[in-house]
Amino acid sequence: MTDQPASTANQMWGGRFAAGPDAIMEAINASIGFDQRLHAQDIQGSRAHAAMLAAQGIISTNDADAIREGLLTVLSEIEAGGFPFSTALEDIHMNVESRLKEIIGEPAGRLHTARSRNDQVATDFRLWVRDQCDATIDGLQALIRAALSQAEQGADWVMPGFTHLQTAQPVTWGHHMMAYVEMFGRDLSRMRDARKRMNESPLGAAALAGTGFPIDRHATAQALGFDRPMANSLDAVSDRDFALEFLSSAAICAVHLSRLAEELVIWSSAQFRFVTMSDRFSTGSSIMPQKKNPDAAELIRAKIGRILGAAVALFVVMKGLPLAYSKDMQEDKEQVFDAADNLMLALAAMTGMLSDLTANRDRLEAAAGSGFSTATDLADWLVREAGLPFRDAHHVTGTLVAMAEKDGIDLPELTLDQMQSVNPDITADVFTVLGVHNSVASRTSYGGTAPSQVRAQIARWNDIIASEEWA
Amino acid sequence: MTDQPASTANQMWGGRFAAGPDAIMEAINASIGFDQRLHAQDIQGSRAHAAMLAAQGIISTNDADAIREGLLTVLSEIEAGGFPFSTALEDIHMNVESRLKEIIGEPAGRLHTARSRNDQVATDFRLWVRDQCDATIDGLQALIRAALSQAEQGADWVMPGFTHLQTAQPVTWGHHMMAYVEMFGRDLSRMRDARKRMNESPLGAAALAGTGFPIDRHATAQALGFDRPMANSLDAVSDRDFALEFLSSAAICAVHLSRLAEELVIWSSAQFRFVTMSDRFSTGSSIMPQKKNPDAAELIRAKIGRILGAAVALFVVMKGLPLAYSKDMQEDKEQVFDAADNLMLALAAMTGMLSDLTANRDRLEAAAGSGFSTATDLADWLVREAGLPFRDAHHVTGTLVAMAEKDGIDLPELTLDQMQSVNPDITADVFTVLGVHNSVASRTSYGGTAPSQVRAQIARWNDIIASEEWA
Amino acid sequence: MTDQPASTANQMWGGRFAAGPDAIMEAINASIGFDQRLHAQDIQGSRAHAAMLAAQGIISTNDADAIREGLLTVLSEIEAGGFPFSTALEDIHMNVESRLKEIIGEPAGRLHTARSRNDQVATDFRLWVRDQCDATIDGLQALIRAALSQAEQGADWVMPGFTHLQTAQPVTWGHHMMAYVEMFGRDLSRMRDARKRMNESPLGAAALAGTGFPIDRHATAQALGFDRPMANSLDAVSDRDFALEFLSSAAICAVHLSRLAEELVIWSSAQFRFVTMSDRFSTGSSIMPQKKNPDAAELIRAKIGRILGAAVALFVVMKGLPLAYSKDMQEDKEQVFDAADNLMLALAAMTGMLSDLTANRDRLEAAAGSGFSTATDLADWLVREAGLPFRDAHHVTGTLVAMAEKDGIDLPELTLDQMQSVNPDITADVFTVLGVHNSVASRTSYGGTAPSQVRAQIARWNDIIASEEWA
Amino acid sequence: MTDQPASTANQMWGGRFAAGPDAIMEAINASIGFDQRLHAQDIQGSRAHAAMLAAQGIISTNDADAIREGLLTVLSEIEAGGFPFSTALEDIHMNVESRLKEIIGEPAGRLHTARSRNDQVATDFRLWVRDQCDATIDGLQALIRAALSQAEQGADWVMPGFTHLQTAQPVTWGHHMMAYVEMFGRDLSRMRDARKRMNESPLGAAALAGTGFPIDRHATAQALGFDRPMANSLDAVSDRDFALEFLSSAAICAVHLSRLAEELVIWSSAQFRFVTMSDRFSTGSSIMPQKKNPDAAELIRAKIGRILGAAVALFVVMKGLPLAYSKDMQEDKEQVFDAADNLMLALAAMTGMLSDLTANRDRLEAAAGSGFSTATDLADWLVREAGLPFRDAHHVTGTLVAMAEKDGIDLPELTLDQMQSVNPDITADVFTVLGVHNSVASRTSYGGTAPSQVRAQIARWNDIIASEEWA
Repeated sequence: MTDQPASTANQMWGGRFAAGPDAIMEAINASIGFDQRLHAQDIQGSRAHAAMLAAQGIISTNDADAIREGLLTVLSEIEAGGFPFSTALEDIHMNVESRLKEIIGEPAGRLHTARSRNDQVATDFRLWVRDQCDATIDGLQALIRAALSQAEQGADWVMPGFTHLQTAQPVTWGHHMMAYVEMFGRDLSRMRDARKRMNESPLGAAALAGTGFPIDRHATAQALGFDRPMANSLDAVSDRDFALEFLSSAAICAVHLSRLAEELVIWSSAQFRFVTMSDRFSTGSSIMPQKKNPDAAELIRAKIGRILGAAVALFVVMKGLPLAYSKDMQEDKEQVFDAADNLMLALAAMTGMLSDLTANRDRLEAAAGSGFSTATDLADWLVREAGLPFRDAHHVTGTLVAMAEKDGIDLPELTLDQMQSVNPDITADVFTVLGVHNSVASRTSYGGTAPSQVRAQIARWNDIIASEEWA
Repeated sequence: MTDQPASTANQMWGGRFAAGPDAIMEAINASIGFDQRLHAQDIQGSRAHAAMLAAQGIISTNDADAIREGLLTVLSEIEAGGFPFSTALEDIHMNVESRLKEIIGEPAGRLHTARSRNDQVATDFRLWVRDQCDATIDGLQALIRAALSQAEQGADWVMPGFTHLQTAQPVTWGHHMMAYVEMFGRDLSRMRDARKRMNESPLGAAALAGTGFPIDRHATAQALGFDRPMANSLDAVSDRDFALEFLSSAAICAVHLSRLAEELVIWSSAQFRFVTMSDRFSTGSSIMPQKKNPDAAELIRAKIGRILGAAVALFVVMKGLPLAYSKDMQEDKEQVFDAADNLMLALAAMTGMLSDLTANRDRLEAAAGSGFSTATDLADWLVREAGLPFRDAHHVTGTLVAMAEKDGIDLPELTLDQMQSVNPDITADVFTVLGVHNSVASRTSYGGTAPSQVRAQIARWNDIIASEEWA
Repeated sequence: MTDQPASTANQMWGGRFAAGPDAIMEAINASIGFDQRLHAQDIQGSRAHAAMLAAQGIISTNDADAIREGLLTVLSEIEAGGFPFSTALEDIHMNVESRLKEIIGEPAGRLHTARSRNDQVATDFRLWVRDQCDATIDGLQALIRAALSQAEQGADWVMPGFTHLQTAQPVTWGHHMMAYVEMFGRDLSRMRDARKRMNESPLGAAALAGTGFPIDRHATAQALGFDRPMANSLDAVSDRDFALEFLSSAAICAVHLSRLAEELVIWSSAQFRFVTMSDRFSTGSSIMPQKKNPDAAELIRAKIGRILGAAVALFVVMKGLPLAYSKDMQEDKEQVFDAADNLMLALAAMTGMLSDLTANRDRLEAAAGSGFSTATDLADWLVREAGLPFRDAHHVTGTLVAMAEKDGIDLPELTLDQMQSVNPDITADVFTVLGVHNSVASRTSYGGTAPSQVRAQIARWNDIIASEEWA
Repeated sequence: MTDQPASTANQMWGGRFAAGPDAIMEAINASIGFDQRLHAQDIQGSRAHAAMLAAQGIISTNDADAIREGLLTVLSEIEAGGFPFSTALEDIHMNVESRLKEIIGEPAGRLHTARSRNDQVATDFRLWVRDQCDATIDGLQALIRAALSQAEQGADWVMPGFTHLQTAQPVTWGHHMMAYVEMFGRDLSRMRDARKRMNESPLGAAALAGTGFPIDRHATAQALGFDRPMANSLDAVSDRDFALEFLSSAAICAVHLSRLAEELVIWSSAQFRFVTMSDRFSTGSSIMPQKKNPDAAELIRAKIGRILGAAVALFVVMKGLPLAYSKDMQEDKEQVFDAADNLMLALAAMTGMLSDLTANRDRLEAAAGSGFSTATDLADWLVREAGLPFRDAHHVTGTLVAMAEKDGIDLPELTLDQMQSVNPDITADVFTVLGVHNSVASRTSYGGTAPSQVRAQIARWNDIIASEEWA
């Protein structure tokens, strides 16, 4: 990023720099290889700028019309493919402006009035990242709907609730799915906050100090959908915290995705068989029919790597940079491009995978009941209903578990007599909490795993989805 | 974190685990070495829980009173120092509960009713991080005031505006300071968003599935200042996204601090001498009187390292963990403790340093005028006032700069005759934009460097500070 | 780190810095809170320095003797505990020197001749990190022995070889264990390379430029076990690449540990039950006897987080620092301390866990045979022995698998007649590769899973361990 | 990566997976978009494999010849550009094999005998990374020569030696350049160690368990320039520590580059003017002739960001992956590609920049003498030659500095009378260490800044460069 007018820069270097940039310098310096992805935003920003310049009387309406029309032509050329991007012209700004000049001639030179590449790239990039926030929000909404749909289907299917990957207590499939709905819901709200905070316009900050031209920054801000112009021109061209916040929020979301993906990989193993992936999202072996490799889940699990790596990269780039623009900041885009692309892909793949997923209800239920998983329910009942102190309740429970273990049966299969032989205060009511279905049904505390609670939370989310602020 | 009642866990392992945890296991497993920092939050949470249990009739009022009173005793013992934290008791929860039992006896055992260490630690940690958000907000407010104060003092002091650490255009000291006010202002709003999002209560999620006891999670949430209980018990004990968001937001703030710190280091060099640090925040050499080492600025610059490192650490820990609680998550606290401590320290040191800082107005102004830094102003004037096309304006400017350079003078020292010899359309009005003071005064676009604009932004910030939502 | 003689620095600041460092500055500036861990290295370096000064005639032998003796007294005081480290004295160097002066008086002041805190801290830290390399090597050797021991025991126990956590082909327990022996072996060689590269002495680089005193840097290098003095004094005080290399190598080792830990967590689940952890390295539930939480494995899995975080932290700190010493570098130690402590702990815990681990041979074998895991062997046999092209071999195999699946039997249970009905070229010899034991026995390529191969590799490692360069 | 033979995989999925992979799955699953960069290594590996298969009698010599010849045709087609890589064929292995089959027909199918895509990709990638080690070594050698050349030119040019960016003591330009020679020298040795450690062949590990075909892994290892085959087939297909080590070593090198780049940026500022960049590696302003933006230096400074980010990404991907192959590992390549490309670019740009760089000898010397930078030399002389205790020497020095400061002169300009008025033991010999040239000349300790020492180190490096092991 330099401070001379883009349209005349390169030939002037020709005068000033006798040697000319050689191949290494061009390779390290040119950004057109990647910043061409900003072409739509660049043209959008330039069109708003031209309209404002005319409205303020800084350029003529004829010139502005020619510029705005010409930019649309450039846009359509680029979108048609095969646009001859030139490395010698360095970046998207100069490529667009150079082509504009070929199309409309002289007036093209006036577009850069009261503007610099510094505020131009800040505007382009902010618009691009804002679009990614919107796309992420869309992706998360689809994923939430897919998880909700799984939850609705299996609101009362029991499965093991794990701690340390050891069966701890029975929960329901719906409850487990709703845990992710909550996580993705927070990811969504984080993206909304990020979008709101970044939605200020750098345009008109010029190189760094603002300008003496009587520009109207509020007008361009409005035209570009920004809430307001940024209030300090140095800040406008110097900071990339909006990109760091997007990357951080993307990384948190990717952590959530990695956790669900890990569960799907484990649950797909021959040893678990909790779920069956659709053929669309797994790959197989031609000669081992049972083998269904959860490739998509594994790739989603891995995505936190590159998204966190991209965040680290930009944090490191920005560390210790003096104001205002430094060329280091050219390294900002590729990281965000890659992270955004991969986040979208992971969201889409997870949504597809979850939509296609079959939970193996029988396997889940069988696993839920293993390992005396309702022993806690028994102990709690003894405290709650029989009034035993905690320690005594645990002693009684331990004895009953040992008794059942010895007989090779589960707790609900013990007779009332057997139970009363250990503690006479036990009544038949105890069976209402034993067994995995009773166990989950009893956990009716707010947010608990009882199907009634799970359905209440599903209903709450359906209300959220139906509400205006969701759209 | 395990799922047995804390009060009886260790001795029971004695029964179950014949071997007993040896030294390595104790070293890797025990968290009391660091989680004792959560003692106040732990006791706060337990007191709210006990009150609720009584209000719901789950334990007696007498027991609840004894528990609540006893916990205050434990708190005062810990705060008095010298509390005998025991590694054998593993963590803060069991250390507190064990001491409580010594003090009040039997009722201590009832405190853990309808609760698990899983929701307990989630609650403690969330309360702790929430406090850090508040402390960060306080720290940022003090820093913003210090930067505003510098800006007010030097709203019209000219200094070089740099790109690539090369003088680009003159700006004002106030404008530069206000750029950081904007950045720290966004950091503050980020912390507020994080605080708001995390302000939900995990308490009552129990081990992972909720509970069958008729608890009132809304009551404990309210007692602890949470906006509401978390809506899914699995999510409540499994996720640490609130810590990741705090760390990410802290890291963004630390990047901003590193940039200002880098500027202060450079500006303090013998070659720049833009600022003079106070003796309080620098160190010297006993025999080299000019040497003032900007130690505090360098340390602040470095802090992004450990804060980003802490964020990476927790992202990596959380990657791919199946629900619900896994012991890996015990690694969450030290990272956040260290990052929070260092962020607070860096904010305080920067606030102190900025408050004490002397900007060397003469050095700044002299530097601002070097290198024909108002050439852009001349070119802009030619476009704006003399109606020249951009390219012509630049050609004329280049010629005039060469003329001045040859004479060893700056642009405003050229005579009108000299100027008109290059382009006859130049009038005496051109001198209104030449020279650094004229240059900055002319950049009146919104957010620009003109003192009038800078003062307007200072006024806006003073209004913000005076407003209710600031406090 | 400053450049005045340590012994007189603080009181002189008193003269120069009227204000004096206040609490914030002290908090951010002092390092004694953590660098006291370098006390043994600091004293070791100072004793070598004093001896050399005397040998070179720079100080008297009497003074050197007093210094060297006095330093031993300080060392024993520190090691006895309760040494009154003073924050006002900032760091370990000044704390030691100040105490030395109390003990031996005047001569203490001569110790700092031809030395600076810059080369002193570089020497201390390098010695400390070198010790950690040695400790890591020890830890890895113990772990390799533990894994070898498991491999020896189960060199021919069959288990599933997974890809994508799906059973792919049978392998042996010994083969799987030996995969980790190879990984930890490379970790060990990486640590040896790092140690060798860092083993150069910074002592005598003084503040940054060397010194005019006739010191003998080779002598101090030799006394401290360094291979040679560093060849450039600026480099000696400025770089911390040895710490970055240690952290990077530690992080790679921690990745390997995390992978084995993940396997142990999964293998311990009720669904897998491939292994049973000892009670020493797991925790249980008082009322759920089957539940054995693999806490140690989970914590080991997590350690890559903080070790990678520490590496990132120091990389970020060092980014873009001008030569020579900058105070930012004070942030180097805590990261390395924490990473080293946790790596040692993880190595010890994994060694203990592996030594205690019981592989459930029957469960492993049963799992190995599921899913027609020897279908590949059949196809390979058809190519190798019956001369079928690959494609045909796969078609035949697919047909036979379908046949077996339909009958609910495994491949070796098909009759020769059934097989020949699909392809007449099949002979009874085919049964030599079917079934998991035949399958693994057949894979005799170098490094393959055949027990003969596994035993050959075990023997190779036993030779390595018996060799001189291992010790 | 799946375990079926590549040539027939996709159509078979067609049978097994009725639905077929849809667009999302293809997008997330296919790697041909990036792994086509491995085409040369893939073909090299396949040619070695085919030759070995024939030598071992596993396939016919005719088939092997056809395969080897056909692969050369495919290679030349790819290198000619325009090769129709197909996403449906997923990866480079299947694209090459599919084209081979079109060219040579039937025998193409035999190439995959005794091999899997798992060992194939491990081999390809290892070969690629090994090439990058070699390229990095070349790049570092060129850079070392460029720095040596600067050092030779200015072995006795004085400049300020900084601590905290404050002038501390005079050093020489040559000494400063040689500090980087040492750093880059260690980077080079690190790359050599990495290369040596990774130079083992995974080929023949097959899917994960080795094979029953009588292959000769030593032969293919030798043919591909590997030192030996990897000793464990599970390890061979599962680990990527060689890539992590390359990335870590690249990141350490990038830190060194960032430090030199930062110095060049600061030294190019108007306030320092220590160096003048060539026009080839800077960009300018058309109207501000003094402005030379150090774009290349800034971009080099930034590269540590993406290289460290790539390292973090792969560390995160590999964390906690069970053996053997998981699809997550497909994420390994893009990170290494990007890091290697950018490291090479940064090395080349730094070499070019340093070769072109002009050190402004007068500015350096003037800056070196400011701030009484030889006060330490005076104090050292008083200790060394006049036998004063350190404390007294500092007191005398402080008084003389104050005297000089009052007169507005530097230390060597004080008369002997003036000096003796402060301490009568001072003799005319003191002037041999005062003044920047005397100061640097006196620092003759090994590795010190004295030109004699600097030249000795240059000579040492020239010997290294002339030695056999350098080439």
